[in-house]
Amino acid sequence: MPALILVLNGPNLNLLGAREPEIYGTTTLDDIHQLMNKSALALGWQLDFRQSNQEGELVDWIQWGRDNADAIIINAGGYTHTSVAILDALRAAEKPVVEVHLSNLFQRETFRHHSYITPVALGLICGFGARGYVLALEALRDIVS
Amino acid sequence: MPALILVLNGPNLNLLGAREPEIYGTTTLDDIHQLMNKSALALGWQLDFRQSNQEGELVDWIQWGRDNADAIIINAGGYTHTSVAILDALRAAEKPVVEVHLSNLFQRETFRHHSYITPVALGLICGFGARGYVLALEALRDIVS
Amino acid sequence: MPALILVLNGPNLNLLGAREPEIYGTTTLDDIHQLMNKSALALGWQLDFRQSNQEGELVDWIQWGRDNADAIIINAGGYTHTSVAILDALRAAEKPVVEVHLSNLFQRETFRHHSYITPVALGLICGFGARGYVLALEALRDIVS
Amino acid sequence: MPALILVLNGPNLNLLGAREPEIYGTTTLDDIHQLMNKSALALGWQLDFRQSNQEGELVDWIQWGRDNADAIIINAGGYTHTSVAILDALRAAEKPVVEVHLSNLFQRETFRHHSYITPVALGLICGFGARGYVLALEALRDIVS
Amino acid sequence: MPALILVLNGPNLNLLGAREPEIYGTTTLDDIHQLMNKSALALGWQLDFRQSNQEGELVDWIQWGRDNADAIIINAGGYTHTSVAILDALRAAEKPVVEVHLSNLFQRETFRHHSYITPVALGLICGFGARGYVLALEALRDIVS
Amino acid sequence: MPALILVLNGPNLNLLGAREPEIYGTTTLDDIHQLMNKSALALGWQLDFRQSNQEGELVDWIQWGRDNADAIIINAGGYTHTSVAILDALRAAEKPVVEVHLSNLFQRETFRHHSYITPVALGLICGFGARGYVLALEALRDIVS
Amino acid sequence: MPALILVLNGPNLNLLGAREPEIYGTTTLDDIHQLMNKSALALGWQLDFRQSNQEGELVDWIQWGRDNADAIIINAGGYTHTSVAILDALRAAEKPVVEVHLSNLFQRETFRHHSYITPVALGLICGFGARGYVLALEALRDIVS
Amino acid sequence: MPALILVLNGPNLNLLGAREPEIYGTTTLDDIHQLMNKSALALGWQLDFRQSNQEGELVDWIQWGRDNADAIIINAGGYTHTSVAILDALRAAEKPVVEVHLSNLFQRETFRHHSYITPVALGLICGFGARGYVLALEALRDIVS
Amino acid sequence: MPALILVLNGPNLNLLGAREPEIYGTTTLDDIHQLMNKSALALGWQLDFRQSNQEGELVDWIQWGRDNADAIIINAGGYTHTSVAILDALRAAEKPVVEVHLSNLFQRETFRHHSYITPVALGLICGFGARGYVLALEALRDIVS
Amino acid sequence: MPALILVLNGPNLNLLGAREPEIYGTTTLDDIHQLMNKSALALGWQLDFRQSNQEGELVDWIQWGRDNADAIIINAGGYTHTSVAILDALRAAEKPVVEVHLSNLFQRETFRHHSYITPVALGLICGFGARGYVLALEALRDIVS
Amino acid sequence: MPALILVLNGPNLNLLGAREPEIYGTTTLDDIHQLMNKSALALGWQLDFRQSNQEGELVDWIQWGRDNADAIIINAGGYTHTSVAILDALRAAEKPVVEVHLSNLFQRETFRHHSYITPVALGLICGFGARGYVLALEALRDIVS
Amino acid sequence: MPALILVLNGPNLNLLGAREPEIYGTTTLDDIHQLMNKSALALGWQLDFRQSNQEGELVDWIQWGRDNADAIIINAGGYTHTSVAILDALRAAEKPVVEVHLSNLFQRETFRHHSYITPVALGLICGFGARGYVLALEALRDIVS
Repeated sequence: MPALILVLNGPNLNLLGAREPEIYGTTTLDDIHQLMNKSALALGWQLDFRQSNQEGELVDWIQWGRDNADAIIINAGGYTHTSVAILDALRAAEKPVVEVHLSNLFQRETFRHHSYITPVALGLICGFGARGYVLALEALRDIVS
Repeated sequence: MPALILVLNGPNLNLLGAREPEIYGTTTLDDIHQLMNKSALALGWQLDFRQSNQEGELVDWIQWGRDNADAIIINAGGYTHTSVAILDALRAAEKPVVEVHLSNLFQRETFRHHSYITPVALGLICGFGARGYVLALEALRDIVS
Repeated sequence: MPALILVLNGPNLNLLGAREPEIYGTTTLDDIHQLMNKSALALGWQLDFRQSNQEGELVDWIQWGRDNADAIIINAGGYTHTSVAILDALRAAEKPVVEVHLSNLFQRETFRHHSYITPVALGLICGFGARGYVLALEALRDIVS
Repeated sequence: MPALILVLNGPNLNLLGAREPEIYGTTTLDDIHQLMNKSALALGWQLDFRQSNQEGELVDWIQWGRDNADAIIINAGGYTHTSVAILDALRAAEKPVVEVHLSNLFQRETFRHHSYITPVALGLICGFGARGYVLALEALRDIVS
Repeated sequence: MPALILVLNGPNLNLLGAREPEIYGTTTLDDIHQLMNKSALALGWQLDFRQSNQEGELVDWIQWGRDNADAIIINAGGYTHTSVAILDALRAAEKPVVEVHLSNLFQRETFRHHSYITPVALGLICGFGARGYVLALEALRDIVS
Repeated sequence: MPALILVLNGPNLNLLGAREPEIYGTTTLDDIHQLMNKSALALGWQLDFRQSNQEGELVDWIQWGRDNADAIIINAGGYTHTSVAILDALRAAEKPVVEVHLSNLFQRETFRHHSYITPVALGLICGFGARGYVLALEALRDIVS
Repeated sequence: MPALILVLNGPNLNLLGAREPEIYGTTTLDDIHQLMNKSALALGWQLDFRQSNQEGELVDWIQWGRDNADAIIINAGGYTHTSVAILDALRAAEKPVVEVHLSNLFQRETFRHHSYITPVALGLICGFGARGYVLALEALRDIVS
Repeated sequence: MPALILVLNGPNLNLLGAREPEIYGTTTLDDIHQLMNKSALALGWQLDFRQSNQEGELVDWIQWGRDNADAIIINAGGYTHTSVAILDALRAAEKPVVEVHLSNLFQRETFRHHSYITPVALGLICGFGARGYVLALEALRDIVS
Repeated sequence: MPALILVLNGPNLNLLGAREPEIYGTTTLDDIHQLMNKSALALGWQLDFRQSNQEGELVDWIQWGRDNADAIIINAGGYTHTSVAILDALRAAEKPVVEVHLSNLFQRETFRHHSYITPVALGLICGFGARGYVLALEALRDIVS
Repeated sequence: MPALILVLNGPNLNLLGAREPEIYGTTTLDDIHQLMNKSALALGWQLDFRQSNQEGELVDWIQWGRDNADAIIINAGGYTHTSVAILDALRAAEKPVVEVHLSNLFQRETFRHHSYITPVALGLICGFGARGYVLALEALRDIVS
Repeated sequence: MPALILVLNGPNLNLLGAREPEIYGTTTLDDIHQLMNKSALALGWQLDFRQSNQEGELVDWIQWGRDNADAIIINAGGYTHTSVAILDALRAAEKPVVEVHLSNLFQRETFRHHSYITPVALGLICGFGARGYVLALEALRDIVS
Repeated sequence: MPALILVLNGPNLNLLGAREPEIYGTTTLDDIHQLMNKSALALGWQLDFRQSNQEGELVDWIQWGRDNADAIIINAGGYTHTSVAILDALRAAEKPVVEVHLSNLFQRETFRHHSYITPVALGLICGFGARGYVLALEALRDIVS
């Protein structure tokens, strides 16, 4: 059975592409999904790609991933900086976690410099836009088999 | 078509009037709704007035307002001080935002002195009770046309 | 009519027992429920025992308890450290509140040393595992009649 | 006798309209005065409208207002963030105080996020430009009779 | 031989009951001692119950407990917040420690929010008055045998 | 020639006695002046007793005292906590300075716990109301001859 | 019966006069005692004057004063900055407390700028050397009768 | 018409030369004025040289300079560290500003390390005594023409 | 001409593989070089791969890269957290910069949570060991052409 | 007469050797005493070696040493981090002081990184276990004669 | 023999003129050297003008200046904010030091607001571009003879 | 083969003896070298004694010591407080490290109170001048064999 990678997107990421296209480009979350699918196919893996604006729903999904996924890639959006509940869920999941952010958080407001997720993640990839998601898959290459 | 103002109320505001009436008075959230309706009518505007205890639902509604409303008036209650997700949604909405609070936050606990919302709002009105909501409508007079 | 104690459990507590049993033991949230039921019976009280990963749902339930419960025992999990909304709901509830934590928070990460709940709670019991829930019932003995 | 509202303007507000008109618009402090007069007339109130660059003169005027005014509307400009003397005068005045700022202070330098005045004010209105002064009058409607 | 529980009370706790009875009630430290004795009897344990205003004497007693007691219940009063010496003694004792406070420290001055004792204690019980001492005994039920 | 003591009173102290008499008593600044005069007479000293709401006027007077007074007693009111200019003037004056406050500043807001004046004062007397001014004179007994 | 004033001196104050006489002068603690006795006589009061290097002994004496003294004058020496136990004892004593220090603490190391005692004291007198003790007696004139 | 340079001196600078001459030397503010005049003459510029102890008067003069001066050289003395009003006036003036201090502020008390003026100044010159004023003129050579 | 990627390694990275192989594995810096060469070949790019323990030499090399390289990949080791000079050099270079770290810095000492480099980097990749270097190349795919 | 070195040991150091021998080794305080005696003999000095759990007793002994000892070697245990009284006593003693700690404090909890004693000590030796006491004697070789 | 002024330039200053000329202008470090030479000639002084990217080389040069130069003018670039070694070398040099910066550091990132050099410098000149170097020479006029 | 002790001296230590001899004495670094040689001889050890002003050269030498030395004694001078690179090199060296400083750092500027080296050192010896180096050798007696 192919490995299953759970890809979680937090609040407001559903607006990608539509929101200020002259700044963020026209890549939508769907485009990212397809980009990743292509890479996953090459690696022989399957994706479960989701988005939610609800902190609790993200916690539910991480708990689901605990029983069903081989690894978790997460861009928790605004919850990155405020959610101990997501941190606890990720720690309990006991799966390799890769944290992704589209923008370089360290060039933005100070409160975005702190993440509750990095301490339980394998590693962090930020600042490379949509490509960061594909790099996250690559980063799991030797870890998920 | 008349302008549409989205009015959002955060957690626990549904208790207004019922909770400690000897302190907060007997004005309910419904009373505020009707008070605002009267003012909106005078301005030739329509209101969409909602309340939720869910951070994610408020994010959903702001995203809805992004496509459908002309301005947003928000009293995010406790999420004012903790929600980066709501901040991000409001910034993405690209609508004039007025922040309202019933009480004077700066006379309460220190953690209430910081708001994630003010930096993306047009302005802030706090400390005037139910009347603050009507002032918020007035504040939009030249901005929403 | 017997007194009704509302027992609220926050995010990730549904994983208890299943998660890392060699560390946390094999006691599940259900086991805790039954343990408490036995004590409640002895005290002539009834329990309403719930768990949710949703911050807003916990707020809803506290508001429900405001009209229906005689006291609230709460282990808010990760929301303990981040939720002003739960704090506001508990204050509005005007019921005796006992805060419980399975682990000794003061031996963990610094951000777990601060709780938004303790200032509105009658008292705090932490570090005694499942037994802490039973102690919380005991602590209400003279207060709930 | 009609109610008397003392309107105080702090340092540099006399430059309004002349200073960087492409940014701040061409509304002068005189324009604001006339705008308020119209509203005051409608409310049956009288205004005493003043401006000073002197911290001590503002203290003097607040003390004068203590004996002669029914309420105080104040935009203390730069003294907002540094003057304990004005805070003390306002507290001693024992009148309803409304704090107004033309700009949204929370989008500017950090030292402008703290106000010595808000803790003794009824409420705060900021970010709505000249209109904020009129809203301040409105805010006093049920309080000054 | 029955288990021996050392119960230590720090400075000013000897004033209990006599001091401001309209606030703290008329329960004295002796009453607490007898309350605990009753519970200890039921558990088949023996108590050694002491009070001192001397930081050093409390250190001596903890060192004594290191060789003679099965567990330590401690309310260190004001030393809770300043005594590294007591912390060191408790750590050296290598016994289960339960920290008790009559009042909810987190509702008092900020300097009472930090305890040097909690990091070496099994757990913390605070805010339940005299009953907290009995709960502390209960909390040791499965630990002391 | 008798020694001359310059007594300076900062902003809002002219309101003493009139302001909230049920709290602050009915002692006015004039009463304090006369109380001090009696003591000064006994010591064979002369007083120059002044009050101003202007920071700069207080600086002027301290500079005047530099050439004309033997010692300075100062209650700088709100400027105590914000004025480096007064600090510099007092240091340049090279006279014995006694700092007086009617209330116990350390029981009020945190920003009142810091004084720019104490580091250049001989000593501080606070919390004894009008009597503090007389104590300040007494404190100078061996210093001014 | 004459009023009894308890005068407490903390650690190292027994060295006064002997320690670095070229700096601190040759006034000993005994000299201070006699100076105060003279003033006390004039006021018709009795003194109980003590010194201890033991934090706990000072707590004991404050507790004794609770039952026997009319007021407490305290120079807690180094314990001023670290002892919550003394703070608690003084609060429990419910007597007027005057805090005295020989030197101007605000001109010394930063850790001496904070006192645990001032918040429970009537007032503070510091920087006037031995004379400060006599001023403390004076300060109690209208309070102790 | 020759360029006009407004030179502003804040509180206590009028004491220069008279105050502690063995430390600060015997250079007076008048001497500085004449020193600058000589340099200004060489540059073909005119000076308007003023001193005030009043924060508000300095604000008035900066506003005057806004309409009449080509550049501003300012040594705001103690107001450097406390005056937002002067900062606002300087920003509104929209003229080149040079900040001067006689002493090296970074070798003095910590509160003198922060200046509200530097962020709106062209540059800062400090530590060179009276010569710093002449350097300030030189610094404007290519900027004022 | 193929694009040239400058790969810079800071202090102590030359020890890789030899240092604590049971922890860090046996991958040496040479192995990483060869791993990257393979990827660079596939992308049609050339590498210039260097290591230095000297802060200034790294600055020199970045300045060299300014004229000769198309992009910079940098793992500045310990200088990441302390070097403003490297930050300035990278900003002056005006090339795309990717920051890499072998370990997840956010799981180590607090002083490693801050990087002077991230604010001038395109993005950050950390926690994926040697693979992070290859991901860094991948991240440049659309940027370097 | 041979020089007399006062060696003071603070709280819990009497437990040395008995406490966790597998960690701290089996060296007791007595062993340290004898080790030092041997070195003292070689130097022609006499030791006065004491231990107390009482902060005040340590103050007493330092005061005794002021009149009788030539130098003081002190390991104040937990009081190192909280005792201003011991600091004051050491400063008053006017003897050379060497501070010793068995463990390397800078590798333990943050509150152990600050010592009230080091600023009044000649120097600090920490991290070398029992040998540190002997090094402390050596360090006094040229100072005590 | 003419006085010798050592002029030191830290990391990245060699890029001046070439780097972003539209922002920083086309003045190179060589141009500054020649500009200073002209001024030095007029003063009858000689310059030794150097630049290095190496912190240690700057330390070496300051030590050389200790024996050979009459004064030091230093723009330490990025090392200004991070180098205690340079601070120590400058203090040991015992020569008059003038600190220069091209830009106004107080309008840039917060970490540039602190300089290790200012506390050992005669004074600071910043924000006047290349002209600041010439002003630094002028500032030494009466000091170097 | 005799044990080899690497002794490293950081920036500005080459000036020892020549720099301010009236303060630091006339002991040079060479004298310290010879003093240590004598002690090393007695212990049967060999020394490798070096000094550099270059942070990177110190890193190089520590890496050399990793393969060749039995222990490292280091006085990193100014780099003590700023160098993570040296910290990393020392940790990688996996040798016993003793940190030495001539002066008592805790009596100097605050930034000298923090050392990056102590957390990886066996222990710290500071404040004993040249003798501290000999004590450092002594401290290694039982550790290096």
